[in-house]
Amino acid sequence: MRENKLKRQWAAGEKTVNGWLAIPNGFSAEIMAHQGFDSLTIDMQHGVVDYQAAVSMLQAISTTDTVPMVRVPWNEPGVLQKVLDAGAYGVICPMINSRAEAEAFVSACRYPPMGSRSFGPIRATIYGGADYPKHANDEVLTLAMIETKQAMADLDAILEVEGLDGIYVGPADLAISLGVTPGFDPEDKTVVDAIQSIVDTTKRHNKIAGIHCGSTAYIKRMWSIGFDYATLLSEARMMAMKAGELLPELKERTGGAKSSTY
Amino acid sequence: MRENKLKRQWAAGEKTVNGWLAIPNGFSAEIMAHQGFDSLTIDMQHGVVDYQAAVSMLQAISTTDTVPMVRVPWNEPGVLQKVLDAGAYGVICPMINSRAEAEAFVSACRYPPMGSRSFGPIRATIYGGADYPKHANDEVLTLAMIETKQAMADLDAILEVEGLDGIYVGPADLAISLGVTPGFDPEDKTVVDAIQSIVDTTKRHNKIAGIHCGSTAYIKRMWSIGFDYATLLSEARMMAMKAGELLPELKERTGGAKSSTY
Amino acid sequence: MRENKLKRQWAAGEKTVNGWLAIPNGFSAEIMAHQGFDSLTIDMQHGVVDYQAAVSMLQAISTTDTVPMVRVPWNEPGVLQKVLDAGAYGVICPMINSRAEAEAFVSACRYPPMGSRSFGPIRATIYGGADYPKHANDEVLTLAMIETKQAMADLDAILEVEGLDGIYVGPADLAISLGVTPGFDPEDKTVVDAIQSIVDTTKRHNKIAGIHCGSTAYIKRMWSIGFDYATLLSEARMMAMKAGELLPELKERTGGAKSSTY
Amino acid sequence: MRENKLKRQWAAGEKTVNGWLAIPNGFSAEIMAHQGFDSLTIDMQHGVVDYQAAVSMLQAISTTDTVPMVRVPWNEPGVLQKVLDAGAYGVICPMINSRAEAEAFVSACRYPPMGSRSFGPIRATIYGGADYPKHANDEVLTLAMIETKQAMADLDAILEVEGLDGIYVGPADLAISLGVTPGFDPEDKTVVDAIQSIVDTTKRHNKIAGIHCGSTAYIKRMWSIGFDYATLLSEARMMAMKAGELLPELKERTGGAKSSTY
Amino acid sequence: MRENKLKRQWAAGEKTVNGWLAIPNGFSAEIMAHQGFDSLTIDMQHGVVDYQAAVSMLQAISTTDTVPMVRVPWNEPGVLQKVLDAGAYGVICPMINSRAEAEAFVSACRYPPMGSRSFGPIRATIYGGADYPKHANDEVLTLAMIETKQAMADLDAILEVEGLDGIYVGPADLAISLGVTPGFDPEDKTVVDAIQSIVDTTKRHNKIAGIHCGSTAYIKRMWSIGFDYATLLSEARMMAMKAGELLPELKERTGGAKSSTY
Amino acid sequence: MRENKLKRQWAAGEKTVNGWLAIPNGFSAEIMAHQGFDSLTIDMQHGVVDYQAAVSMLQAISTTDTVPMVRVPWNEPGVLQKVLDAGAYGVICPMINSRAEAEAFVSACRYPPMGSRSFGPIRATIYGGADYPKHANDEVLTLAMIETKQAMADLDAILEVEGLDGIYVGPADLAISLGVTPGFDPEDKTVVDAIQSIVDTTKRHNKIAGIHCGSTAYIKRMWSIGFDYATLLSEARMMAMKAGELLPELKERTGGAKSSTY
Repeated sequence: MRENKLKRQWAAGEKTVNGWLAIPNGFSAEIMAHQGFDSLTIDMQHGVVDYQAAVSMLQAISTTDTVPMVRVPWNEPGVLQKVLDAGAYGVICPMINSRAEAEAFVSACRYPPMGSRSFGPIRATIYGGADYPKHANDEVLTLAMIETKQAMADLDAILEVEGLDGIYVGPADLAISLGVTPGFDPEDKTVVDAIQSIVDTTKRHNKIAGIHCGSTAYIKRMWSIGFDYATLLSEARMMAMKAGELLPELKERTGGAKSSTY
Repeated sequence: MRENKLKRQWAAGEKTVNGWLAIPNGFSAEIMAHQGFDSLTIDMQHGVVDYQAAVSMLQAISTTDTVPMVRVPWNEPGVLQKVLDAGAYGVICPMINSRAEAEAFVSACRYPPMGSRSFGPIRATIYGGADYPKHANDEVLTLAMIETKQAMADLDAILEVEGLDGIYVGPADLAISLGVTPGFDPEDKTVVDAIQSIVDTTKRHNKIAGIHCGSTAYIKRMWSIGFDYATLLSEARMMAMKAGELLPELKERTGGAKSSTY
Repeated sequence: MRENKLKRQWAAGEKTVNGWLAIPNGFSAEIMAHQGFDSLTIDMQHGVVDYQAAVSMLQAISTTDTVPMVRVPWNEPGVLQKVLDAGAYGVICPMINSRAEAEAFVSACRYPPMGSRSFGPIRATIYGGADYPKHANDEVLTLAMIETKQAMADLDAILEVEGLDGIYVGPADLAISLGVTPGFDPEDKTVVDAIQSIVDTTKRHNKIAGIHCGSTAYIKRMWSIGFDYATLLSEARMMAMKAGELLPELKERTGGAKSSTY
Repeated sequence: MRENKLKRQWAAGEKTVNGWLAIPNGFSAEIMAHQGFDSLTIDMQHGVVDYQAAVSMLQAISTTDTVPMVRVPWNEPGVLQKVLDAGAYGVICPMINSRAEAEAFVSACRYPPMGSRSFGPIRATIYGGADYPKHANDEVLTLAMIETKQAMADLDAILEVEGLDGIYVGPADLAISLGVTPGFDPEDKTVVDAIQSIVDTTKRHNKIAGIHCGSTAYIKRMWSIGFDYATLLSEARMMAMKAGELLPELKERTGGAKSSTY
Repeated sequence: MRENKLKRQWAAGEKTVNGWLAIPNGFSAEIMAHQGFDSLTIDMQHGVVDYQAAVSMLQAISTTDTVPMVRVPWNEPGVLQKVLDAGAYGVICPMINSRAEAEAFVSACRYPPMGSRSFGPIRATIYGGADYPKHANDEVLTLAMIETKQAMADLDAILEVEGLDGIYVGPADLAISLGVTPGFDPEDKTVVDAIQSIVDTTKRHNKIAGIHCGSTAYIKRMWSIGFDYATLLSEARMMAMKAGELLPELKERTGGAKSSTY
Repeated sequence: MRENKLKRQWAAGEKTVNGWLAIPNGFSAEIMAHQGFDSLTIDMQHGVVDYQAAVSMLQAISTTDTVPMVRVPWNEPGVLQKVLDAGAYGVICPMINSRAEAEAFVSACRYPPMGSRSFGPIRATIYGGADYPKHANDEVLTLAMIETKQAMADLDAILEVEGLDGIYVGPADLAISLGVTPGFDPEDKTVVDAIQSIVDTTKRHNKIAGIHCGSTAYIKRMWSIGFDYATLLSEARMMAMKAGELLPELKERTGGAKSSTY
């Protein structure tokens, strides 16, 4: 089976950068796959991406050695198994708030006896190789989103779930849950402390920790406080940021560019 | 945030007409968006429409000021949040039969602390504006379908759910549940009485009431008995009705048109 | 080979009604295929329809015995042959203004020695049968649009082209070419006389004559002056017409429906 | 309503062959529909197929009298009802491991009072006829996948569920559940015995039994031990098998073909 | 008819910025439409965009007041008329190298008697209004690409073509034609002189001049030498540029980002 | 620039096998790309494949080192340049019947000064590398279909066209042109002699010769008489052939499989 490069990088102590895909298109995905990210995550939760588009995007990523991952819309076995069968080498599952939810998530992603994943890795064997079924439980990443007070309260129990590789912090939802206005790269002490606590707990369990970021500076900071991987913006935001940087210089002559907030 | 025109119309005592979209295509949606409906609902339950097609249709509706809504296939947080993030200004959720189901539905649609909606309004901020997160809980409509005896029995409890804006009657399912043959614009006394009871209870709770209709006459009748909004057929049925009106005059010469029943 | 029902109907002196498809979707096409039209034409010229959508629509029509036809965007061998290979049983080609253009059109649609169509009827044999190649030159309809003064001037020469089955009048373009404002179902004497002249010339050559109409009354009139087939509106227009009939009754209460002109 | 040919065949004691579709495309589906299978199942679980593609494939199958079926991704009412409304004449539901799961599955597929299916058979009436609502509970097949030890333990209770037509054995998952390496056409005694036990129990309940196979020989064997229907490979595998048969003869000259394992 | 804002801006002496779309997707197009460009051009020539995707993108642009334009793949009447019927308010046509080519281009875009455009503005009337047919010849922009030595030699004749609104310089092709290595924002004197000569000639004919640029600095320079409008990069390039700016800072730790050259 | 493996293989005297793709889908393309063909050709002429689907298929092929090629629908510069920009490493152009047609074909595919290809290799640089523009004229294959008597008469002149890499024989069209019934793997002496003559002439010009075949035996025969590459069936036919081989054994019990002729 094609190895999961991320696992090797993390085992070697390397920090990794994850790209993020919200546009439902194979061509934009292919461009991003050639930028040098260690991994790319197709966002089926908040991105504008459905399963069929995600397959095209997985194929586009597969033209390179960037590791393909998917954030599923919800902790639901149908979609978890479909994206794994389509060749995702990692899944990020939103809103894991309890041990039971973590167990359900992991079970859907692991073949028996570890879990209850149904057998049929139709594109996964094309991408991963004929021996995918034998090694999938070891190579495919399961990453639970920790993004509420409730999840923080149950974090040790969540991290004890066998077969769970690690966690992913969603700072916006975490902030809301803590009563703070959501935004990229939080500086609010409540949120920063919560993030620190999550990464500390995760590393104490020897699991992998990642987080969604909005700048390289914040990524470096997150790496320095213990995170193993971090996401840098999204392709949609990069596109809009560059337009937002360049246009005002031209359109102050004609009225100024509109703001963009997504 | 772009205001939800429907809320303003209802607050002013106006009755509104909703159009219905079952064809998974942006062009037919755009044509319908230019007809003058107050709102248009993309039917992901019984319509032939998946999420990715729904996004194209939401964009098509967004070329006008018609309010875009979606009926989701089921009371499932993944799809509820995806259509809201895609910019639906209202969601109709089928088969809400208990207070618990209503609470789950509303929770998925409201940001904390009112609910548990996850943060990431990717297209909603484009359509609604940068301050969408702040006002979404107030502007986005949650409409629970009341279409079974069980739902009628629990209606007061359902209507007490905070954050639920109103209800939507599905007369066909309601008829079946009451043991009556389903059809548009029911005249059966059992069903008519049930409808009257539902609207009365709803208005007693000061919530919004809507219903699916098959004719302008029935809409006017429904408005007169208390409903605030009503759906007029669907674009698919309108197309077939017009063909069914015109063809027989021509094809009685050659054998007669086939009937159409959807 | 599955016979072309239209040819049998016309041979028996029957007049036929053609439906028109402008929405790029298989579901709307399937609904229309069940209405009782003798044939349905997918409009790749002015409709919002590309080749890949047209294939889905041809499949949808093939669920019934309605004869599938395509209007191509232009007199270009690539697209003509693609739609024939995809199983169209008739092609309407716009803007045939000279004998040379008619010859090029017909040549692209007929296998040698009659023409120069390349061999590869990939879906046509699925739809038409294994002996499609042997009979296609006889069964597949080639219909040249006559819609300019120039075409009228060269009409006899156009109709002499071997392998051309007939013509199709585009009244809007014909009107413009004659200096008259375009519109459905022309009453302007210049245009009406031109239409009469075209049908008379066509029937003198024993070829098939068709025309695009906007009402059943005009179709009956066109049949009575010699036309063999006529198109009734389009599915997009039927949908909009029905909405336009029904909505004003409801929305005069709130401001009135917007007009629709496509 | 168009009758469900499979039910008539089985009632007459006939064994049937089911084809399997994993490629999300209407054209490959149409080719397969012309091969002579009694039924074709669109695999939305392990196939690379989403709802919108499935609709195109259902339309393609509807150009023939092959019975259209769908395997849904999961026992979830939203998708079950969507594929039925789209005209599937049978649904195979994965991982039915208990009576409760079987009841939920059947309930979602049957109109009241037998179940809780919501009314709106939008394409089903086009395909099946205007009286579809009256007969759907009788004609539409519900087939529960029996593919775990747990399901075997609860098999009698599962088979007692009213409205369940039969079962479908997934040998790969069954093997895994029994601790055996998964593969087509199992010869391992544990698995073979389990299969025999499942078919025996099913027939004792006078229900229909089917199984997924990888060869004609195994299908004949399964028919002989009591199965009513069996699936033969998939269109994707047939394509790859034929390439795998032919290429080595040519490429031993240049290095040999790569193996393919999906 | 909705006015063409670009024409009003240019008439008022304003310089405009055009955005460029190469990704075949409605969502990326909608994001770009909210950035504040005066116009957006969908690139069907070198972009990865086909007609059906272009329609979705035109709809996405139509959610704002940004002027929608299309660069067609070639000077071919079929596609020119399809994009105009779909509501493009301007077309850029590649490789106009002679007066005859310019005449053919313009003729396809203008209704008689000015040209030979066929009547059927199906989406253009939805976007532009019911009186689109009356004003389209005045409002829709025809822009000929001047990008070869041959075109420069025939430039006066090209600019004399009635109904041609202006030109668009493709610096890469122009450079190649002049024997210079192609690239954004040319500094080679041969190319710079050619560009100056083209804009001077164009303005002498009182026509509109535009050019494709890779930076705001070059756009300002081009405006200063007489150009009326200029394109700033493309959405694909903006996305890649932003990634290329940010990633190296992070991945110098792990090996560095790959270069990107499209 | 990524080298064109076919050119290296042919230079080394190796014969190559080409696969053929007629199904418009990225997943079937990806399966075929893993079978071990030296190259795969997407058939946009007789296949059911449009440009946008072809892009997905090119991406799918790019997950392997199989060389991606496209047969265009017609000798038209727009589509030729679009598929090259999308990363096709070879184009097969149908119906090249004269030197002039060959020159037009080659010119559209070569950058100046060799030809007139417009600059914008948007996906070609992603697939081929940043230096694609410098080497594309050398690496990208131009293959003219020789499939009529007229082409045979002008063959020397066609082969003298600078920049043309070779030819591709379409035996079906060639047979028709010679008055013989078309079919795979012709044995008719007239056709066989014509094929021999074409390959002899081609090799005398030191150009590459290929041909479409229906069996491995015929491919070996064609290699032995001088051809450098040959196509083996198509993915659609392989799928149908395998079904046609297996089903009769099962369905003789129930009536026999339908024949398939595409």
